[in-house]
Amino acid sequence: MRVLILGGDGYLGWPTAMYLSSQGNEVCVVDNYFRRFACVEKDVPSLFDTPNLFERARHWQEVSGKEIMVRIGSVADYPFLLDVFHEFKPDAVVHYAEQPSAPYSMLGHSEARFTLENNLLSTLNVAYAVKETDPSIHIVKLGTMGEYGTPNIDIEEGFIDIEHKGRKDRLLFPRQAGSLYHTTKIQDTDLLYFYVRVWGLRVTDLMQGPVYGIFTEEMGGDEDLFTVFNYDEIFGTVLNRFIVQAVAGVPLTVYGKGGQTRGYLNIKDTLQCVGLAIAHPARKGEMKIYNQFTETFSVNDLANAVQRAGKDVGIDVEIKSVPNPRVELEDHYYNPVHTGLLDLGLEPTLLTNNIVAKMLESVIRRKDEIRRDIIQPKTQWN
Amino acid sequence: MRVLILGGDGYLGWPTAMYLSSQGNEVCVVDNYFRRFACVEKDVPSLFDTPNLFERARHWQEVSGKEIMVRIGSVADYPFLLDVFHEFKPDAVVHYAEQPSAPYSMLGHSEARFTLENNLLSTLNVAYAVKETDPSIHIVKLGTMGEYGTPNIDIEEGFIDIEHKGRKDRLLFPRQAGSLYHTTKIQDTDLLYFYVRVWGLRVTDLMQGPVYGIFTEEMGGDEDLFTVFNYDEIFGTVLNRFIVQAVAGVPLTVYGKGGQTRGYLNIKDTLQCVGLAIAHPARKGEMKIYNQFTETFSVNDLANAVQRAGKDVGIDVEIKSVPNPRVELEDHYYNPVHTGLLDLGLEPTLLTNNIVAKMLESVIRRKDEIRRDIIQPKTQWN
Repeated sequence: MRVLILGGDGYLGWPTAMYLSSQGNEVCVVDNYFRRFACVEKDVPSLFDTPNLFERARHWQEVSGKEIMVRIGSVADYPFLLDVFHEFKPDAVVHYAEQPSAPYSMLGHSEARFTLENNLLSTLNVAYAVKETDPSIHIVKLGTMGEYGTPNIDIEEGFIDIEHKGRKDRLLFPRQAGSLYHTTKIQDTDLLYFYVRVWGLRVTDLMQGPVYGIFTEEMGGDEDLFTVFNYDEIFGTVLNRFIVQAVAGVPLTVYGKGGQTRGYLNIKDTLQCVGLAIAHPARKGEMKIYNQFTETFSVNDLANAVQRAGKDVGIDVEIKSVPNPRVELEDHYYNPVHTGLLDLGLEPTLLTNNIVAKMLESVIRRKDEIRRDIIQPKTQWN
Repeated sequence: MRVLILGGDGYLGWPTAMYLSSQGNEVCVVDNYFRRFACVEKDVPSLFDTPNLFERARHWQEVSGKEIMVRIGSVADYPFLLDVFHEFKPDAVVHYAEQPSAPYSMLGHSEARFTLENNLLSTLNVAYAVKETDPSIHIVKLGTMGEYGTPNIDIEEGFIDIEHKGRKDRLLFPRQAGSLYHTTKIQDTDLLYFYVRVWGLRVTDLMQGPVYGIFTEEMGGDEDLFTVFNYDEIFGTVLNRFIVQAVAGVPLTVYGKGGQTRGYLNIKDTLQCVGLAIAHPARKGEMKIYNQFTETFSVNDLANAVQRAGKDVGIDVEIKSVPNPRVELEDHYYNPVHTGLLDLGLEPTLLTNNIVAKMLESVIRRKDEIRRDIIQPKTQWN
């Protein structure tokens, strides 16, 4: 199969490219290097230096014998994107090409505007490019569990059967996100759902939880194939941040009470899920929605897991609540359904003590390179 | 009260400006003349020539003694908008500054992109300008009944109480629109609801049905105070189009079966509703949502009403189904609640035979100016 990966330079994009390439697919990656530039602009480097996409693709070809095509440009630039579609002729598109950070989207007007414009125009352009070149192309879109927020009812997979005043309908599950970034993902869902119904596009929308982890099979310990690994307050995800904080000897930054509960998954499972989505495409005029995570944890659960694993590797981990910079419930009901991907064959990589310990060990080797000044939260939601 | 009207040159914007001005408010109108330029670009003129905003404001001052401040620029241009907020210091903002046509948004990529970018950035900018200058400013946002689509359950006013698997919550009513334009209005709701919750903004979101009518009290038959009146397939709303078709001797263009049912209101009632919304502002951190229409009709109902009234004014009106250019249900359940604005004191102007006849008579005087070539639908949804 020919798979086009938009946002192929990102934390998930590059590992997805290698994973799908190693499975025998023809892969093309597209990126505008936004994340690289933003990390420089905000002075929040990755723990690992990552070669650029051309360099990584060349190195991947050396070690695997497989080619990954690279095109640098913005998915929000429609003529560029259309050229890529005409040239590569994908069977499936994996759309990661969005500004992915909630804190970044809350920094100020300029960042909010960029997030809104980039994320929505890129999604519009993908829909149009598919319609213009080949409406049978399957779009796999990365959404987020954050679209649902934390309602007081069970969260279904995308749609909910509502019985109201004696009548029934199956409608999109109501959404209410906790950041502008997450709100743009709701808006993406609105947008794609519309074009699915009107143009008969084929879309799978993956409501992904926060991802943790460093390594995938395809990296094989080869540093030149590593993915970007942020641990700062803007681009770092919570468990990755805790791992680095533990190694740096900084108390784990639990926001507020720490009862905030979300569905998490290992980076290896992201690759499995995207692979499964591609292997089970939506039909013409269908939008499949899956809740993509394997386990739910509160922030306190994650902090405790890192503290426990710390003992195994000889680190004494301190946990400390800091004032919550976000506007969110710190103690709430949370019970999202997540059987769809399991039914397709997902084999979860669970968050064992062993996995946390291995992450800690990998980061310990880089201990001297950790920038302690970029760890504390600064971006205020209001 | 000081009221800033964004999109003050539009079909509803200018009448709203005069209405609020006549009630003793200080009014400032902002517009980028998008609609004027688009009507030239697409060659779909208004039935009435309308002087530009400066000319109309001067004329309004001559006849009423009241000043309306005019600023020309784009609400999507944040520095410009911020200057207007700093200068005018509004108590309330009425946000009409959006690309308002469903067919326009379906013309092609360029128009879709403009609609998405303009409508969302303008709404983002309004939220930011309010937060930056005075978070107590009440935002009155024009949404659309089209956000809800045509679900098989009763449509509540913005929110719905859901009981699911033994638990309850009150959430946004699920939305599913029928055009890209309507989808951007869903996205606006998502956006404002987010900032209401995080920044404590005060927002009223008016889910308005299609508006019909030509005249308001403030115009007083003075042609230089008339509002833009489109009857083409892009910018004309259905009843206004039928009136012009009847006068032009063209069969009324009922799309498909004509069972498509929507909630309608007279342009005079739009002014009442916006006035009522301003007089009953949302509290800090509250988003009020009202369904803004007075009566529901199917397209066939409207065609029959024009045919009946035609007899009274001596016109023989023909009705003819044309292939539906849109993707929509032509026969469906439709029962939206609309008690909120009535409870605030809305006195509906109902669609009587007399009102239709008066519209017909007004258009008959312009019969020779009607462009018959812009009446038939051309824009295909898919």
